[in-house]
Amino acid sequence: MTRHVLKKRSKKAGLPPGSLVHIGEQKTDVMKFSVLDYDEQNCSETILSRIEQCFVYRDRPSITWLDIEGVHDIHALEKIGQCFGLHPLVVEDILNTDQRPKIEDYGDYLYIVLRMLTNGSEKGEISSEQVSLILGENFVLSIQEGAKGDVFDSVRTRIRSSKGQIRKLGADYLAYSLIDAVVDNYFIILERIGERVESLEETLISDPGQETLHLIHNLKREMIYLRKSVWPLREVVSGMQRRDSILIRESTGYYLRDVYDHTIQVIDTVETFRDMLSGMLDIYLSSISNRTNAVMKVLTVIATIFIPLTWIAGVYGMNFKNMPELGWRYGYLASWIAMIFVALGMVIYFKKKKWW
Amino acid sequence: MTRHVLKKRSKKAGLPPGSLVHIGEQKTDVMKFSVLDYDEQNCSETILSRIEQCFVYRDRPSITWLDIEGVHDIHALEKIGQCFGLHPLVVEDILNTDQRPKIEDYGDYLYIVLRMLTNGSEKGEISSEQVSLILGENFVLSIQEGAKGDVFDSVRTRIRSSKGQIRKLGADYLAYSLIDAVVDNYFIILERIGERVESLEETLISDPGQETLHLIHNLKREMIYLRKSVWPLREVVSGMQRRDSILIRESTGYYLRDVYDHTIQVIDTVETFRDMLSGMLDIYLSSISNRTNAVMKVLTVIATIFIPLTWIAGVYGMNFKNMPELGWRYGYLASWIAMIFVALGMVIYFKKKKWW
Amino acid sequence: MTRHVLKKRSKKAGLPPGSLVHIGEQKTDVMKFSVLDYDEQNCSETILSRIEQCFVYRDRPSITWLDIEGVHDIHALEKIGQCFGLHPLVVEDILNTDQRPKIEDYGDYLYIVLRMLTNGSEKGEISSEQVSLILGENFVLSIQEGAKGDVFDSVRTRIRSSKGQIRKLGADYLAYSLIDAVVDNYFIILERIGERVESLEETLISDPGQETLHLIHNLKREMIYLRKSVWPLREVVSGMQRRDSILIRESTGYYLRDVYDHTIQVIDTVETFRDMLSGMLDIYLSSISNRTNAVMKVLTVIATIFIPLTWIAGVYGMNFKNMPELGWRYGYLASWIAMIFVALGMVIYFKKKKWW
Amino acid sequence: MTRHVLKKRSKKAGLPPGSLVHIGEQKTDVMKFSVLDYDEQNCSETILSRIEQCFVYRDRPSITWLDIEGVHDIHALEKIGQCFGLHPLVVEDILNTDQRPKIEDYGDYLYIVLRMLTNGSEKGEISSEQVSLILGENFVLSIQEGAKGDVFDSVRTRIRSSKGQIRKLGADYLAYSLIDAVVDNYFIILERIGERVESLEETLISDPGQETLHLIHNLKREMIYLRKSVWPLREVVSGMQRRDSILIRESTGYYLRDVYDHTIQVIDTVETFRDMLSGMLDIYLSSISNRTNAVMKVLTVIATIFIPLTWIAGVYGMNFKNMPELGWRYGYLASWIAMIFVALGMVIYFKKKKWW
Amino acid sequence: MTRHVLKKRSKKAGLPPGSLVHIGEQKTDVMKFSVLDYDEQNCSETILSRIEQCFVYRDRPSITWLDIEGVHDIHALEKIGQCFGLHPLVVEDILNTDQRPKIEDYGDYLYIVLRMLTNGSEKGEISSEQVSLILGENFVLSIQEGAKGDVFDSVRTRIRSSKGQIRKLGADYLAYSLIDAVVDNYFIILERIGERVESLEETLISDPGQETLHLIHNLKREMIYLRKSVWPLREVVSGMQRRDSILIRESTGYYLRDVYDHTIQVIDTVETFRDMLSGMLDIYLSSISNRTNAVMKVLTVIATIFIPLTWIAGVYGMNFKNMPELGWRYGYLASWIAMIFVALGMVIYFKKKKWW
Repeated sequence: MTRHVLKKRSKKAGLPPGSLVHIGEQKTDVMKFSVLDYDEQNCSETILSRIEQCFVYRDRPSITWLDIEGVHDIHALEKIGQCFGLHPLVVEDILNTDQRPKIEDYGDYLYIVLRMLTNGSEKGEISSEQVSLILGENFVLSIQEGAKGDVFDSVRTRIRSSKGQIRKLGADYLAYSLIDAVVDNYFIILERIGERVESLEETLISDPGQETLHLIHNLKREMIYLRKSVWPLREVVSGMQRRDSILIRESTGYYLRDVYDHTIQVIDTVETFRDMLSGMLDIYLSSISNRTNAVMKVLTVIATIFIPLTWIAGVYGMNFKNMPELGWRYGYLASWIAMIFVALGMVIYFKKKKWW
Repeated sequence: MTRHVLKKRSKKAGLPPGSLVHIGEQKTDVMKFSVLDYDEQNCSETILSRIEQCFVYRDRPSITWLDIEGVHDIHALEKIGQCFGLHPLVVEDILNTDQRPKIEDYGDYLYIVLRMLTNGSEKGEISSEQVSLILGENFVLSIQEGAKGDVFDSVRTRIRSSKGQIRKLGADYLAYSLIDAVVDNYFIILERIGERVESLEETLISDPGQETLHLIHNLKREMIYLRKSVWPLREVVSGMQRRDSILIRESTGYYLRDVYDHTIQVIDTVETFRDMLSGMLDIYLSSISNRTNAVMKVLTVIATIFIPLTWIAGVYGMNFKNMPELGWRYGYLASWIAMIFVALGMVIYFKKKKWW
Repeated sequence: MTRHVLKKRSKKAGLPPGSLVHIGEQKTDVMKFSVLDYDEQNCSETILSRIEQCFVYRDRPSITWLDIEGVHDIHALEKIGQCFGLHPLVVEDILNTDQRPKIEDYGDYLYIVLRMLTNGSEKGEISSEQVSLILGENFVLSIQEGAKGDVFDSVRTRIRSSKGQIRKLGADYLAYSLIDAVVDNYFIILERIGERVESLEETLISDPGQETLHLIHNLKREMIYLRKSVWPLREVVSGMQRRDSILIRESTGYYLRDVYDHTIQVIDTVETFRDMLSGMLDIYLSSISNRTNAVMKVLTVIATIFIPLTWIAGVYGMNFKNMPELGWRYGYLASWIAMIFVALGMVIYFKKKKWW
Repeated sequence: MTRHVLKKRSKKAGLPPGSLVHIGEQKTDVMKFSVLDYDEQNCSETILSRIEQCFVYRDRPSITWLDIEGVHDIHALEKIGQCFGLHPLVVEDILNTDQRPKIEDYGDYLYIVLRMLTNGSEKGEISSEQVSLILGENFVLSIQEGAKGDVFDSVRTRIRSSKGQIRKLGADYLAYSLIDAVVDNYFIILERIGERVESLEETLISDPGQETLHLIHNLKREMIYLRKSVWPLREVVSGMQRRDSILIRESTGYYLRDVYDHTIQVIDTVETFRDMLSGMLDIYLSSISNRTNAVMKVLTVIATIFIPLTWIAGVYGMNFKNMPELGWRYGYLASWIAMIFVALGMVIYFKKKKWW
Repeated sequence: MTRHVLKKRSKKAGLPPGSLVHIGEQKTDVMKFSVLDYDEQNCSETILSRIEQCFVYRDRPSITWLDIEGVHDIHALEKIGQCFGLHPLVVEDILNTDQRPKIEDYGDYLYIVLRMLTNGSEKGEISSEQVSLILGENFVLSIQEGAKGDVFDSVRTRIRSSKGQIRKLGADYLAYSLIDAVVDNYFIILERIGERVESLEETLISDPGQETLHLIHNLKREMIYLRKSVWPLREVVSGMQRRDSILIRESTGYYLRDVYDHTIQVIDTVETFRDMLSGMLDIYLSSISNRTNAVMKVLTVIATIFIPLTWIAGVYGMNFKNMPELGWRYGYLASWIAMIFVALGMVIYFKKKKWW
């Protein structure tokens, strides 16, 4: 994936800043603009058919949440930028869907980038998409790449049903709720990974193979990837807390501290998985080497027992004229006894040394 | 365990903040509310039968310690929240029993989360439970998950018997005493782990096996887990010291510094154990490989001695018509002498090279 | 390369500071001085034939961009230093082409060192050259070593065609554009490396060999080198942002933050590649050892099966007079049956133990 | 040792803070209280027979140094606490002889904990004991556990003989002198360790064995232990320097900086030893594996040469009726020539490949 | 070396601070005191025959540079201390030639410790000696241990010939020039090391052996040593820059920044060498194991081919009466065919599996 993005990214080299080029895969066919406009009493929902309609919501006293799915229509995003007075660099960043989480203060509004995780395939591999939030005085824009799942549904439901305090509080609380939804979603992803780690652990004990090694390495790589999505988030949330922006009310501070705690928990869990996977790699390597050694040991023991026996047999297979033992009556029997004696001696010796 | 919690945690995703859902195992059947109300002269103990009774203690000048065991009854905790004016997020955090240690200042009260450790099973594996402390001006709430053991008994006894200064000093000293009790308990846990590490060390020298490896890894993982419970505690205690909250009197500062020292000692010991376990892993791996090599070496030496002998025997087992040695009188003897000579030569060579 | 520079560097030891000695390879034959002088309305381009001509541009109100290719003509650079009032140490640093990225504030002008990366050979090895930028109030000097490619072409085109805002904004925006061009170029380099990492990964699975190890190590070393060029850049850009120099207008701050983000992305990608290469090294080592072990195992199994058989054959090759089995009618057949029996037994045993 | 202390420590769990319990081994039978009272002109020495006598020295203008050996008599220490107005937690900490170095400011006095190292046994293993210093305005208390050696003798001599400035300067200079004596003693300990590391290094080259591995690990563990005693010392000394306590005169600052430098040197040396031991471990492991491989290689070469020879001998030991070679006149000779030829060929091949 | 110093160091334990004892090897027979006294117009050079002559230079307005070689004459250094008003601890530190680089501000003068590196022996091993600089208002003292080479010659020449600005600027510029000379000398040392690293790299590919391992480890240890000399230098130089000492003029700041850059470059190069050596160790270990495995593989293949053949020969060497094959006309031929068939089969199998 990294390379995919690098390819697109490197194509953009040389364009002036603020050039609007969509970097990343197009994840949806048609862009969708849904508006949720609410205050404590009222709540109206609209799907915009033409992007120009967004200008209606510009100076309303009520809180407007414009949720956009899809980022490939550069023209539409440019219009939105004009409508809400966004800096060209913000619109450019919305289009570049390989941003790491960050927060930027543009005075009138905050620009927040998050990464939403989804379980891409049945194998459980994680893919991520960019979620841009713009928090203005009484509006919130959320721009998603157009994922399969939508973690914002729960927030939408809460607004519609006026559940909790969300209708009573401002745009900053809405922004918090959206961030919280994204972070909460991480726990679901982590649970899946936890299952995979656990099943890998069982395989490791029952039947480790070359395959196990690749699984461990794949999980390790995903952890690196996950870590990269989550670590900067910590700074984003603590940045929101510390920030003396007038856009964030003091009462929202407690809630941000709560999200911050969740972020730390996510990071902690990711680190724990990393530690576990490192330990598993050690166990894998030492169990592989243990197994091979066990094989070699037993085999060598067998070989070592028979080599002296073969030598004894060889001695009495010599054709010297003058070999008195050959004529003895119990010579053959004696040779058997000697061989059994030698074999038993070695077996006892090996047993005593616990080599067998 | 991590996964167990993740499962519950991920179910909560999408609920509004402040939603009261108990996350974690239910560890007690019935919740128990014990009140200890004291000042320098008097001290009364009550077990509340109905949670509503707690309202009585709200505005008393004496110091009230309400100890709660069990967190599964959401309704009761909500009542307590109302009684003592707790923020919904605090009540939510009390219910989520997978918090890491933290301190939060809500102006009127401090909310402190600790983790209490217990030796879960006979194998000595560590389990932990969450202890929430709420320190108000003249009350302390302590909420435990309802563990088997209760580290607060010693504090209770001291209050009853008016031992030490505890009856003379305020609620902040009581909170300190409870934190101190939790930290002191760590030393008991660490002693158990110390015993296990030591016995593992002996096994490592006397009889290392695949089993030893798993024991080392289990202890290592427990250390990771322990570390995660103890490290943030350091910040909690130093946070209490630094904090300019009016709830913490200056005289309590010395005591907090003392707990801080103990926390550092606990961390130091955990780090020492980690270092020791890493060293043990190295010794294990190299002793396993040493042992296998020793086996292989001796066996190969034996094989190598007999292979040339077998060849000599093979030569005189050939059926050529014209083999003058076969007719010699002492040919057979000579072949024996040759074989003994070769064998001895190799043994001496190996001995000299210290390969045997 | 490091050593090449060290050799030159060590020759300079003992000279007074400000001594002008060119350190590094000469990368171009003739130095080239191109001037782009522009304001919002006009834009003129000149190639200076004599360096003294640069004095013309000294005090113009329009913005002058003097781009210099090649740094081996000490005299010419000295002249430029006089013309624009540069500190002798700055001219010295321009000549020492092994600088790490840095920013230095000389009051009237900022001196910025960057490293531009190019894919030196077909093997894709990276080489770097030094780019010095001097940002004055209304001039920008850019001094390149005279590379094969020129990443500043896109900026030049933008100025000529008055595309974007570049003609409207000041010298600081021009400096930003040049830095941006250098950073954008990194993405192209990273894409190439990404391709090499990916193809290496495929080789690793299909056919790992000693060669693969060397490729991994070469890439690792390049990553160390790349890292060294990119890490300090982060400080340079954040230094420009923070700096309270009057040379940098507030509006340029947003653009610098954008470059800063790109720098972080480059660093992130480099770190990801490093992690991937470490993982690949682990896989390489364990797959090599796995393969060898597999070989040894199968071979030892074969040997072990035949050694007892050879012994049986040896026994009945003995020449004792009195060996009743030799006279039996089905003795020979029986010996075959015994041998087949032993061989099958061992094969079954090995199969059962999954050693084969 | 860690475990020994943990056992005692965990017994103390549950006692109120300030409870006086002696934690650690009792290292002396009778406690000894020696007083050195001096000013620029006079100097008197007394051994106190009854601890109550210390009250005499309380408010004298001269400088009083009370040196206490042994910490098991809780009653005596309590008295001293009363006499010099020590906080109960300080007395408690004096008794807990497993403290890490620290400095605590109690306003009227500073409480400093150091660790003094001694070579416990002939094996050269390090043991440590706690030294508590209390620096008041014109007194210094030093409490040792009662070690075999006494590093303070040199300070005592200097006071008696009025050598150096010690008699002219205040109590803070005395405290500095005592800390300096403890740190100077570390160099003696480090020299011993240096000798052991060096002799280990020689063993490693001449005759590495399983024993060497254990020695390396023991030294590594001692280094961990040493590090833990020394690292916090750095903070203690720099803490004294920075501290704006009226107890420390400005002129003493230079001397503290000197001790600080020594501490850094000790830490540096410890880190160097750690690095050296890590390198030695690597060399040990690779030399063990090199040696085993060398053995295996030579042995396998020998075996490989004789196996084809044995086969040739076997071929002409077959009993087919119709084997023309057997009847040849020089058949036997030819077989010898063939065998010598094969053996030589293999030897040459191995030599050429440098396998032998 | 470390141990050598530790021995001397530990002897000093117990002496009062400021005790003048020379720690380290005596590196010159006779101490040499050379004075260079200059201002913009004049410059005089003297070799002092008696140290008391230095008092002449005390209060001159011109700049005096007193360069001292050798530190074993304690008396002479004491005199110098008196003459220039040095603190006893400074004189003590000059004598202890195992200091790490540091800077200390004594108000009237700065005391700077540097380490000068020299290539001790032909093997190219690095040794270091201490250089102490004392920067007063119009004097600079430089105290060297009396090395073979003198890096200050270039500075001397510049003063004599009035080359560069050195005669025009103050004592701080002289001190800078001396520091610069020491740092420049590092590049020469690094070049030598670079050569050794490179030749080691070639050996590693062409002919790695146990010797190579020791060379890698020696270089690694030297890097540790070098690092310890260079890292603190960084703080020294940046300390001089930041310091608000009146002794350092603002104009010297630019030059110090330049030295700082060079220091960073030296550190960078040392780190690069460390990384390269780590990589080389990995390659060494894996190539040793690769080679041994290759040997074992080929040998085992040979052995495995002949073992079944020997068995076939053994079978027809049996002496059963009734072995029909023995009587067959082409029995012998058939046995050869069987053997060739088996051998070829195995060779083909091994080739196919790429084991050979």
